[in-house]
Amino acid sequence: MNQTVIKSAFMALQDRICSDLEILDVEGKFKEDAWERPGGGGGKTRIIIGKTIEKGGVNFSAVEGLMPEKISTALGLEKTQFFATGVSIVLHAKNPFIPIIHMNVRYFETTHGTWWFGGGIDLTPHYIDEELASSFHQQLKNVCDKHASHYYSEFKKWADDYFYIKHRKETRGVGGIFFDRLDKTKGTKEDLFNFVMDVGNLFSTLYKEQVDANRDKAFSPINKDWQLHRRGRYVEFNLVWDRGTKFGLDTDGNIESILMSLPPESRWTYKHDFDEEEEKTLNLLKKDIDWVNRKAR
Amino acid sequence: MNQTVIKSAFMALQDRICSDLEILDVEGKFKEDAWERPGGGGGKTRIIIGKTIEKGGVNFSAVEGLMPEKISTALGLEKTQFFATGVSIVLHAKNPFIPIIHMNVRYFETTHGTWWFGGGIDLTPHYIDEELASSFHQQLKNVCDKHASHYYSEFKKWADDYFYIKHRKETRGVGGIFFDRLDKTKGTKEDLFNFVMDVGNLFSTLYKEQVDANRDKAFSPINKDWQLHRRGRYVEFNLVWDRGTKFGLDTDGNIESILMSLPPESRWTYKHDFDEEEEKTLNLLKKDIDWVNRKAR
Repeated sequence: MNQTVIKSAFMALQDRICSDLEILDVEGKFKEDAWERPGGGGGKTRIIIGKTIEKGGVNFSAVEGLMPEKISTALGLEKTQFFATGVSIVLHAKNPFIPIIHMNVRYFETTHGTWWFGGGIDLTPHYIDEELASSFHQQLKNVCDKHASHYYSEFKKWADDYFYIKHRKETRGVGGIFFDRLDKTKGTKEDLFNFVMDVGNLFSTLYKEQVDANRDKAFSPINKDWQLHRRGRYVEFNLVWDRGTKFGLDTDGNIESILMSLPPESRWTYKHDFDEEEEKTLNLLKKDIDWVNRKAR
Repeated sequence: MNQTVIKSAFMALQDRICSDLEILDVEGKFKEDAWERPGGGGGKTRIIIGKTIEKGGVNFSAVEGLMPEKISTALGLEKTQFFATGVSIVLHAKNPFIPIIHMNVRYFETTHGTWWFGGGIDLTPHYIDEELASSFHQQLKNVCDKHASHYYSEFKKWADDYFYIKHRKETRGVGGIFFDRLDKTKGTKEDLFNFVMDVGNLFSTLYKEQVDANRDKAFSPINKDWQLHRRGRYVEFNLVWDRGTKFGLDTDGNIESILMSLPPESRWTYKHDFDEEEEKTLNLLKKDIDWVNRKAR
């Protein structure tokens, strides 16, 4: 289980997901933009502008080199070489009833012998469908349970805490799972790799369920307007609070690739009005909702 | 020259500017939303959705109370009462040829005897008109020159450095002036107050010139699309780099009032294409352009 194996597995994951998404979208095709990092390594940014998916990015990267000073100091590791590889996805659909979805799997190691995995999947519906949110969480739980009984509750809480828009006192959406620094204290490299790959391989199934349940729903200008305002919140989270984005912007990363997560279009209105349907969603943007068992209530 | 005088002058400035802008817009009227701060003081947020101005905010606030720990520690002042008052403006016009404009004047003092003024005006054209940019800077220079010969060059550079979108390697627009912590080492309270009020009082004239020169220009869908993408950059600056916004979000400020600066609508496209006209503007989003003397070139 070395760098090359993990990198190849992530590249293949990007390929599979892109292929799944093209089938799901029916019309859209990904355009690839390969890039190189001046300090070492590079990536393949793939963007889709489709029929169902208004704007989507499925990015692979594998970068290496001398650790940026900012990070090496924070980690207490000086003059170290690092290697980092990952797949990152954000999809914005046209239909306001289809949620925004985000996935990331990543692996990091240094020449000092440190290594870890991180990742997660989370869902941001513009309108929360409680059954679909429950099913989303149940499937994440199933994958987690295969690997360790404490994973789901731990990583679900981590997502609640991470995807929180502090200045709005709202969660970004219904959460999902989020984990970081899964290292040798948490399992063997093989076990953790298998877990991360299981998460990555679940992605297409999870998104397909959300799309198929909602793609034919008619929507009004009010629904579209609400979607654009909720996308505004997504922008606020990503630019103000997301550590991955901040890290990329601070370390002179590939800006266009980092900011592919931003929506195609968004709106802000001072104290925007909302109706009953929208209020129902707002009331569910809270931490610690037991989505798995909510359906049964 | 006490708190009350400064506060009243800022309130009157808000009134005058709102009245000027309603005349300029012809149709739009400001709606006022008065708010109170739990810790002391409050403000009046005024929003216009007009014919020319698509979304604009002219905010007044005067807040006081115990200094938030985060700031008192940073300033080395513990258990201090503070008083802060200011007027903040951001205007987004419908016509892409009318620039976004921002103004702020502010006064801060503590019970320890510390006080200072800050503020500035800067312009963010979607399409840079070099003559209008030059005129904008010339008028700012005239006001600065009335007070101190070094003000304009110093505060113009400060604006270039402050309104810089580091991750894009672009200035936000053509800059203007920015200044902070003008305290007793820089002049008497009366002199600095007079300078700040002169800056505030110039605002309507500056904006009127930009609006009148551009309001009747026809624009294409390409121009509108470009405007929405440039507004995306404005969002990026305000959420990622603007210290005022960050401070507000960190200290649990009045969120809707702080974020009134965000545009009504914005767009992001992966590696967005642009034509010659747009490229001309991009090439001018640089620090250290001598706008005052540029017209003569």
